Amino acid sequence: MKKIIIIGYGPAGVSAALYLKRAGLNPLVIGKDLGALDGYSDLVENYYGFSEPIEGRKLIQSGVVQAKNLGVEIITDSVISLKQGEKGFIVTTTTNQYASEAVLLATGKTRQTLNIPGFKKFRGKGISLCATCDGYFYRRKKLAIVGCGAYMQHELEYLNRVSKDVTVFTHGHELTCTVENDVNTAKIIRFIGDEKISHIVTDQGEVPVDGVFIALGVPSSIDFASQLGVIVEKNNISVDENYQTNIEGLFAAGDIIGGKLQIAKAVYDGMQAADSIYSYLNK
Amino acid sequence: MKKIIIIGYGPAGVSAALYLKRAGLNPLVIGKDLGALDGYSDLVENYYGFSEPIEGRKLIQSGVVQAKNLGVEIITDSVISLKQGEKGFIVTTTTNQYASEAVLLATGKTRQTLNIPGFKKFRGKGISLCATCDGYFYRRKKLAIVGCGAYMQHELEYLNRVSKDVTVFTHGHELTCTVENDVNTAKIIRFIGDEKISHIVTDQGEVPVDGVFIALGVPSSIDFASQLGVIVEKNNISVDENYQTNIEGLFAAGDIIGGKLQIAKAVYDGMQAADSIYSYLNK
Repeated sequence: MKKIIIIGYGPAGVSAALYLKRAGLNPLVIGKDLGALDGYSDLVENYYGFSEPIEGRKLIQSGVVQAKNLGVEIITDSVISLKQGEKGFIVTTTTNQYASEAVLLATGKTRQTLNIPGFKKFRGKGISLCATCDGYFYRRKKLAIVGCGAYMQHELEYLNRVSKDVTVFTHGHELTCTVENDVNTAKIIRFIGDEKISHIVTDQGEVPVDGVFIALGVPSSIDFASQLGVIVEKNNISVDENYQTNIEGLFAAGDIIGGKLQIAKAVYDGMQAADSIYSYLNK
Repeated sequence: MKKIIIIGYGPAGVSAALYLKRAGLNPLVIGKDLGALDGYSDLVENYYGFSEPIEGRKLIQSGVVQAKNLGVEIITDSVISLKQGEKGFIVTTTTNQYASEAVLLATGKTRQTLNIPGFKKFRGKGISLCATCDGYFYRRKKLAIVGCGAYMQHELEYLNRVSKDVTVFTHGHELTCTVENDVNTAKIIRFIGDEKISHIVTDQGEVPVDGVFIALGVPSSIDFASQLGVIVEKNNISVDENYQTNIEGLFAAGDIIGGKLQIAKAVYDGMQAADSIYSYLNK
């Protein structure tokens, strides 16, 4: 069992890892493939210390190398689930499972949504981003889950327990996992309905649904947090002055806890959270 | 008149400058000659973003270049006095004087002290680091001021008002300014006395004194702050949640306000202070 797993290897996660490593702990850092990082090509000009503007992606790579040089264990993988174990937490990635006493959520705020007409309108009115959170309200209903990989498979397992009628919509993508459910590979054109969603319109026709669960790509920290019952306010994970969520041993830092969405703040968060995590693990 | 002068071009000062410049203000940053920076040759390993350890001095240089590249006005000079003007503040350096509506103190905590036997013992018992703060208690006494440059000259002006018997001790250094007082160029060996200091022992003999004021090198932020009546607690400048001291328009950030003496914290401070200064100047 690990002492501490850090999910996310951006500024907050790596900053925490640097401090924890130097404090004598051996954090395991799990971050997404940098290739999957969109929106990180902007030049960073206001983070102290770099005489020339640096591309966000390069800064992240540099931070990962920095941590590795210090001996921090870093794995590139996508976390698809976070659960409480008998003691501590179970972190499941697309390829493995890890146990730890404490977890630091530091994945930033980028999240997969669907740029499809009707998505915003019906979000919360039949469209959900968290099967574990909302699945129960759709017992025995006609459900769709949108996704094509390990994260979808994980969410689908839960949905299959609440309904016998769950169809997988790959939205034109290739299915990269094995499922026993019906699979619809058509491209989704829009979601329609009245007060609530009623149909998925694809390029191959309309399909009636009661509920649609989005599980494309990989889940965000907010998704993990929701799965565990963490208090989320205004799309920010709530933490106390020690960067701890309402769940003991579960910490969060960086953009996901709100405040200024700045690297300087995320780095500071990481340092401070490391301190609290160290105290927590040595109490 | 400038809107904002930042004293110090380390992480806190430059971070604040970057944010203020990008917010449309034109901060003037005044920092000490890097050659004078001792104790900055350590390698920095725990500040996020640098794949290889970077020497403290190089990081500071890199930050200065970063700010200059963004168009920030940076002057290398030693601030020797900070006073309140009719509106705002008057910042005096060894070569010039500047007025500004607000000031950010971000000089870090390095300060000149004397590694001479008796210095620690008699500090507060006849040895003072601030003529403006303590000079009044030595009216008409036999005083010594230790120093050789512009800062000493500035402090001496004040002492000459409280006593007609002030001798300048250059401690073996060459006098780099003009004074009308007696000058003793002998090297100081130790300070002696009973409950309070009574004599300066030099390599050329003993000199009786009632009070000794140290004004070697350049003053620290704590010295400036003390001159202005800023609340200082446990050698930290006290600031509110907006990084403002008890004097309106005077802000402080970085090591001098206490907390973790870490670059990540200083950079964060600078960013946050910039925000408060911006609000203050636009209120």
